[in-house]
Amino acid sequence: MKISFIGSGNVAWHLSQALENIGHSVEEVYSRNPKHAEALTKLLYNASAHHSLDFRDSAAQIFFLCVSDDAISEVIKHLTLPLDAILIHTSGSKSLHEMDEMLRVYSDIPIKTGVFYPVQTFSKVFHVNFSTIPICIESDNESVENLLITLGQELSDITYAVNSEERKVLHVAAVFACNFTNHLLGVAQELMEENDLEFDLLKPLIHETVRKALDSKNIFNVQTGPAVRDDQKIINQHLLFLKQLPDYQHIYRALSEGISHQKHK
Amino acid sequence: MKISFIGSGNVAWHLSQALENIGHSVEEVYSRNPKHAEALTKLLYNASAHHSLDFRDSAAQIFFLCVSDDAISEVIKHLTLPLDAILIHTSGSKSLHEMDEMLRVYSDIPIKTGVFYPVQTFSKVFHVNFSTIPICIESDNESVENLLITLGQELSDITYAVNSEERKVLHVAAVFACNFTNHLLGVAQELMEENDLEFDLLKPLIHETVRKALDSKNIFNVQTGPAVRDDQKIINQHLLFLKQLPDYQHIYRALSEGISHQKHK
Repeated sequence: MKISFIGSGNVAWHLSQALENIGHSVEEVYSRNPKHAEALTKLLYNASAHHSLDFRDSAAQIFFLCVSDDAISEVIKHLTLPLDAILIHTSGSKSLHEMDEMLRVYSDIPIKTGVFYPVQTFSKVFHVNFSTIPICIESDNESVENLLITLGQELSDITYAVNSEERKVLHVAAVFACNFTNHLLGVAQELMEENDLEFDLLKPLIHETVRKALDSKNIFNVQTGPAVRDDQKIINQHLLFLKQLPDYQHIYRALSEGISHQKHK
Repeated sequence: MKISFIGSGNVAWHLSQALENIGHSVEEVYSRNPKHAEALTKLLYNASAHHSLDFRDSAAQIFFLCVSDDAISEVIKHLTLPLDAILIHTSGSKSLHEMDEMLRVYSDIPIKTGVFYPVQTFSKVFHVNFSTIPICIESDNESVENLLITLGQELSDITYAVNSEERKVLHVAAVFACNFTNHLLGVAQELMEENDLEFDLLKPLIHETVRKALDSKNIFNVQTGPAVRDDQKIINQHLLFLKQLPDYQHIYRALSEGISHQKHK
């Protein structure tokens, strides 16, 4: 397939290369910042940096819209696609319906749409292996859905049909499991290093925590620590220790209360 | 060495077996609940369940005190040890000094003390490999410190001398990295399953999140998600989605604020 990318952020960065690795061809990359588009095209076979959102003359059949949710409406406002183009967004939180509505307002021609959401956290500097990334696809159009299933299966061992409502739940859950977990690990790292302790000391504990949780039918059942023991003395000591760090204190309190309430449910 | 255990919870459970595996002998196990002590002795070579805290006639040289912090003072109040006994606690948050003070109040004979804190989360049903668990040791007595270093090195590849102040920091950091992370993963699992989505969908994301964080010199720099993008629209959508789950909403808000403040520091 001939594919173009609108956006050159972390998702576009990895997805475009992964699609070329399985034999597809990336035609164009558009980015608000032309330098970013050019940086990505250098990693692709024949792609060119595209400097406008006018894709009327593009040879691409599929356009991957990989921009932040906030930017989607701004892009669609100025987007011109060739006839028969398929527009696919890759967002965890944008519903298919919202994108369709915007297109109806701003486009004269009917455009087939779909969602292709890889459930993973991407950073440019970290290599990702798409074969283990669940791909959530959605489309109201059967041929587009089949196409996305095929693309998904070429890239990954795990492809799910997930509608917009389910995708929103998935995204909230991912924020807890991924974004918030990362912040907690960052807090732990900072506390250790600020006190001249090696963060490495905690790494086996972190690995075991995750292994144990992911092996558990009910993760709440393997909860350990002062909050689940209702050990108010230690909790108070820890809150006192964090008194110069109000954000950490606030997080400590919210999570300890959550753990305690969960236990007494 | 001949060793006895006071307490038969998760730490005693694994540590006693691990010490026997490297050739030490567990003499007695005491637990408030005799059935718990008996259950553990069944997994040990020659240990007997001890029904009181009077160890005057014990052949053990080292006594591992593996009870909750709250129970330590109650145990010490009733504890009688043989002459030359060494009493070692395994708590992350109890200072050596606190234990020494209690002993001075309740014991006629001077007792050598130390701390042997394995930085790991233990559950009876999950096997643990001590060789990868950092052991933090502390003693004011040089011979006890050397003994604990030897025991630590026999059990594990990683033994650190960590004083009581450092151990407190370590314990707070461990609560963030382990206990709180477990709760977040539990919340994610519940959100998924309550909405008929497979939790497996999130597992590659969780593995990658942890891998990436533990590979990062500064974990805050690899933060992703709506909070670090200051994407208030999605944050509000998520808070609205969580409105029937006030604890989760509270955690969501505390962590999103923490992430945002961290970014703008």
